[in-house]
Amino acid sequence: MGRKLAILGAGDVGRSVADLAGEYGHEVVALADSSSAAVDPDGIDVESTLERKVGGESVGTDDPEAVFETDYDVLVEATPTTLGDAEPGFSHVERALEADRHVVLANKGPVAERYEELQALEADSAGSVRFEATVGGAIPVLSTVEDETPQAVTAVRGVLNGTANFILTRMAAEGLDYEHVLAEAQDLGVAEADPTFDVDGTDAALKFVILANVLADGGFALEDADVTGIQNIPGSALDLAAEDGRTIRLIGEATREGVRVAPRLVPENGPLAVTGTRNIVQIETKNAGSLHSSGRGAGGPETATAVLSDVGRLPEL
Amino acid sequence: MGRKLAILGAGDVGRSVADLAGEYGHEVVALADSSSAAVDPDGIDVESTLERKVGGESVGTDDPEAVFETDYDVLVEATPTTLGDAEPGFSHVERALEADRHVVLANKGPVAERYEELQALEADSAGSVRFEATVGGAIPVLSTVEDETPQAVTAVRGVLNGTANFILTRMAAEGLDYEHVLAEAQDLGVAEADPTFDVDGTDAALKFVILANVLADGGFALEDADVTGIQNIPGSALDLAAEDGRTIRLIGEATREGVRVAPRLVPENGPLAVTGTRNIVQIETKNAGSLHSSGRGAGGPETATAVLSDVGRLPEL
Repeated sequence: MGRKLAILGAGDVGRSVADLAGEYGHEVVALADSSSAAVDPDGIDVESTLERKVGGESVGTDDPEAVFETDYDVLVEATPTTLGDAEPGFSHVERALEADRHVVLANKGPVAERYEELQALEADSAGSVRFEATVGGAIPVLSTVEDETPQAVTAVRGVLNGTANFILTRMAAEGLDYEHVLAEAQDLGVAEADPTFDVDGTDAALKFVILANVLADGGFALEDADVTGIQNIPGSALDLAAEDGRTIRLIGEATREGVRVAPRLVPENGPLAVTGTRNIVQIETKNAGSLHSSGRGAGGPETATAVLSDVGRLPEL
Repeated sequence: MGRKLAILGAGDVGRSVADLAGEYGHEVVALADSSSAAVDPDGIDVESTLERKVGGESVGTDDPEAVFETDYDVLVEATPTTLGDAEPGFSHVERALEADRHVVLANKGPVAERYEELQALEADSAGSVRFEATVGGAIPVLSTVEDETPQAVTAVRGVLNGTANFILTRMAAEGLDYEHVLAEAQDLGVAEADPTFDVDGTDAALKFVILANVLADGGFALEDADVTGIQNIPGSALDLAAEDGRTIRLIGEATREGVRVAPRLVPENGPLAVTGTRNIVQIETKNAGSLHSSGRGAGGPETATAVLSDVGRLPEL
């Protein structure tokens, strides 16, 4: 059934959700960036709106506030992830739920940092909250946990940061050091100008914190995670690992007991040694053994398919 | 929301669905084998019913016909897969849909052999049909295709028969010939007394036919598939492959154009070279790149989690 989507955030993910919504049978009634919005209760013209945005102009001529005043079924929260109070994302979600609307998040902040408050808001709302896009991009991680039931999942581990994985893959393959490969990754657009959260483990940790919250029904935030990044791995450590048929990957693990992210030795030809920007998760279950899924863990269209699959699973209001 | 399940078939899958239904919040109002049924509109006592069945007695004291006369929300069709007219499974599904009930299939026959008729029955019913359990056991294959939308999936390929994969893995690892390893697999319970459909490619082909039907919205049956089994692979072929860093796997592929299942050379350390009874699928998509999922492709509890995840996705009647 088609839904009216209001999309907050006009970065790669927000724009891709707008672009693909029609293929999934939905209509975009609003698309907002931080300073403006395109709003039309009969559906905005997505193509011309995206052209304007990509051309460097503001996304529309309305005030972002107008998004909340239009008639929508689902708020898609795709503004940048922020830590701590997770604002302004958290307040966006709050307003939508208080208006009895559904929310689909691509923004990790509210789910990682304020999970219990989010659950309380959802309990008081006719709307539901879903957030598949916050973990593993296109890879169906949270829906698989839901399929197995969270209480029957004992642990989720894997590689959930493509930038760090690309750097480790290149260091091992070319025998280059960290600084050199990071500069290369920035040139290729694989690493951002400020790559801190990717290389220090924060981004991966947020995703495993979200998984721990799902498994344990809350209780975790970023500060509870035990996190080590890849910045201090010398090329010689990768050479040493290779001599033993192993390599190094930034591996995270979420259980009901906690979250850990750190560089770990893994078999060079084993399932966790995905290469380049690919992500992988291993879901350990009570009833169905170990389920492995890999794919692109980031990217606009990839993440947008996760947002839109969530939209398809929302109950009727 | 909890549903009343009527389960047809008391083999590994049917019994496991009954056993796990409570964990998923559902109630079992009927469980039938081919000659009898346990039926109780207030919920059967699953534990004692399963004990009786496993002890060699009939599953209950009612006539199987009584299943259709009780009040249920979802018919779980888990009787053995049959080819051609796919009976009696197809008629079971027909009766449930004509009574405006939902149907979840673990039986591949109706979906592989009579897909268009099944779609027509569903279109005339208030009930819906789902069949995740027919492809890849616990691996979320069909839900991932649904998430990406079938029209945005260009191909699905992989290993979907654990028995054939076990035989090829053991032949390569031990340098043993086909007949020897088949006998070993039968001793271990990995291969059935009559392993024909596993080793001649029929079982894998049925799964890829179902996938082709989903991608193309029908049009395929087993007779449309191009199928070669593993019975004639000499051990020497595996030795030759290994010298080149490759091995042999029974690989299937479904596209909108057709279905092919045949032994293929694959890189020894590549993603398709899963070992033992494990299954893997690669889903090629337009918007999200290539998604890989692997896990246990068969087994009672594993397949039951797929049935129960389907039950959770059914709309309210």
